[in-house]
Amino acid sequence: MMAVNESSLRGYPHPSISCRAAFDWMLAKLVRSNADGFHLLFLHVQVPDEDGFDDVDSIYASPTDFQSMKQRDKIRGIHLLEYFVNQCHQLGIKCEAWTKQGDPKEVICHEVKRVQPDLLVVGSRGLGPFQRVFVGTVSEFCVKHAECPVITIKRKANEAPRDPIDD
Amino acid sequence: MMAVNESSLRGYPHPSISCRAAFDWMLAKLVRSNADGFHLLFLHVQVPDEDGFDDVDSIYASPTDFQSMKQRDKIRGIHLLEYFVNQCHQLGIKCEAWTKQGDPKEVICHEVKRVQPDLLVVGSRGLGPFQRVFVGTVSEFCVKHAECPVITIKRKANEAPRDPIDD
Repeated sequence: MMAVNESSLRGYPHPSISCRAAFDWMLAKLVRSNADGFHLLFLHVQVPDEDGFDDVDSIYASPTDFQSMKQRDKIRGIHLLEYFVNQCHQLGIKCEAWTKQGDPKEVICHEVKRVQPDLLVVGSRGLGPFQRVFVGTVSEFCVKHAECPVITIKRKANEAPRDPIDD
Repeated sequence: MMAVNESSLRGYPHPSISCRAAFDWMLAKLVRSNADGFHLLFLHVQVPDEDGFDDVDSIYASPTDFQSMKQRDKIRGIHLLEYFVNQCHQLGIKCEAWTKQGDPKEVICHEVKRVQPDLLVVGSRGLGPFQRVFVGTVSEFCVKHAECPVITIKRKANEAPRDPIDD
């Protein structure tokens, strides 16, 4: 199982720098030429938008607006997953992809418990302790709490954007 | 690269419960039938014994005594590594094994930087936050600081000894 998320810089449907690097590493170092030997599960957890107005130029909204926003989020999540599914198809690797709503760290650990994958793959921004206090890291939580082995793949320093909290 | 340590319950040359479980998992889930595709490096870091008298029934020692203790530690470390090397030989997996002296978490990260393995494998006792405060965990440090992807394999609850700090 691999947890994937969107880039904070480029938005949907672009995967974050760290999860893209983790995916590339997994293909190069784990899957290698043994495409038949793997079945990948991509999990994208969408954080419900508290105010729902991050890119809407209005503070008014009808119930229908909220409905259409939910629908739009779903479509964006599917587009993100398409990136990974398409690459797997080209390489002949069996895969599945899911979107879920909620707190990513909680949902990922819950899904690990339910699905019992052999391995959970998570990318990490590799933040320092000071940055971590404010941001929290999903990968750290999963390493401690997920009920399966977890591989943490840190973003390379030369791939980090100007603000390392971005990804 | 795989970091290995001795059992706190059974002593040298027995590997700890968590590193043995991590080794078995690695063989079953990563190496699988592809023995040719791997080159394993086992690293055992011995913590220098501060007083050197843990199993000597005397508070006096000559320089020769110290020398022989160092020698004995080295032999014990080699016996521990033998367990892993023998299994690899039986399965036809190429491997190397090293002992080093020092603070395990620091030495492991230093060796990762020097050797640049594709992956660092560490076992973990899976301690809770309260237990971790007093024990510290090598695996947690490595996930944050090692300059390569790190896979953390937690000990199963049913494999934990009565005192979970033991391993």
